[in-house]
Amino acid sequence: MPDHNALPLVILAEKFASLPGIGMKSAQRLAYHVMSMNENDVEEFAQALINAKKNVRCCNICQNLTEREICPICDDDERDKSVICVVEGPKDVTAFERTREYNGVYHVLHGLLSPMDGITPEKLRIKELLTRVANGGVYEVIMATNPTVEGDATALYVAGLLKPLGIKVSRLAFGLPVGGILEYADEVTLYKALENRNNM
Amino acid sequence: MPDHNALPLVILAEKFASLPGIGMKSAQRLAYHVMSMNENDVEEFAQALINAKKNVRCCNICQNLTEREICPICDDDERDKSVICVVEGPKDVTAFERTREYNGVYHVLHGLLSPMDGITPEKLRIKELLTRVANGGVYEVIMATNPTVEGDATALYVAGLLKPLGIKVSRLAFGLPVGGILEYADEVTLYKALENRNNM
Repeated sequence: MPDHNALPLVILAEKFASLPGIGMKSAQRLAYHVMSMNENDVEEFAQALINAKKNVRCCNICQNLTEREICPICDDDERDKSVICVVEGPKDVTAFERTREYNGVYHVLHGLLSPMDGITPEKLRIKELLTRVANGGVYEVIMATNPTVEGDATALYVAGLLKPLGIKVSRLAFGLPVGGILEYADEVTLYKALENRNNM
Repeated sequence: MPDHNALPLVILAEKFASLPGIGMKSAQRLAYHVMSMNENDVEEFAQALINAKKNVRCCNICQNLTEREICPICDDDERDKSVICVVEGPKDVTAFERTREYNGVYHVLHGLLSPMDGITPEKLRIKELLTRVANGGVYEVIMATNPTVEGDATALYVAGLLKPLGIKVSRLAFGLPVGGILEYADEVTLYKALENRNNM
């Protein structure tokens, strides 16, 4: 913002702009919006930021974000602990939970391998997954990373570490999205759908 | 977010979602992003929110947001105090300042008339504008609200109050945007461009 603007506003706009997906123009609009909020609401917002950062940690078992030592999913006796679904981040856990069909547990890697960006295996929670599997009681690990270069590479790498432990390692199915139209599917998706066809 | 998520995260996501232009999905992503920031940065963000709200006020003269009693523009002896450009909000001041062509001062209404939304003349800083003009020394007031129903109505309403005071009241020109292509201009813009044509 130009220098005729009040400094605290410029600083606030810069903080908003540092968030992913928010450009300088939106950040400015958000800063102005904060001015129109009442003081109480602004303080609650500030407190929510600090609380989230201070009180949310990684689950000791699955590494998903939680307020407790052990997250509600890992702590739930109804969940099948012998099946672990490995995902990139907490938002993927949310996506699977929305299906209401999965009854196993999760393991959150907190990223995908990307050596070009300096994300090497040590930066992900892979060691913790291996320890979980080594402790026994695990029958299957489902690699549920995105069907992207990084997602596939991570799935392959982790699968390579898990297979010697003698457990079943699977990957999500790729094919036509349900409700999608065949003619609009991209070539790779269509090829995957053909390759992975099922008997009727 | 479903209830398997940590409560402080859910609260933070809701705060983000309460901002204009941020949906629940983006809000969730932003909340997760805050988790990946370091604690210092999160505290600075929280402090920036509080500082902006606490230390930024309206200029005693033009009502633009500033840290001081009188904003830098109203306080600048080089600016022509006899011309006042009336705008909807502080971001419009920024837009005019970017042109580097306007040397008058501003008056920020903090909104546009919209009786359906309960925004009546008393809710805007119109009284302050009338006081400024009544105090003398003003030669021209430029109504620079948006060319929308609310913007036009506000401009007409304020102009009606100012004209009896015997000053010049003008409105921004409407026409083809510079660099635009005639064939893509909407009918109203093209009509305005024709109507307001200038001699060459």
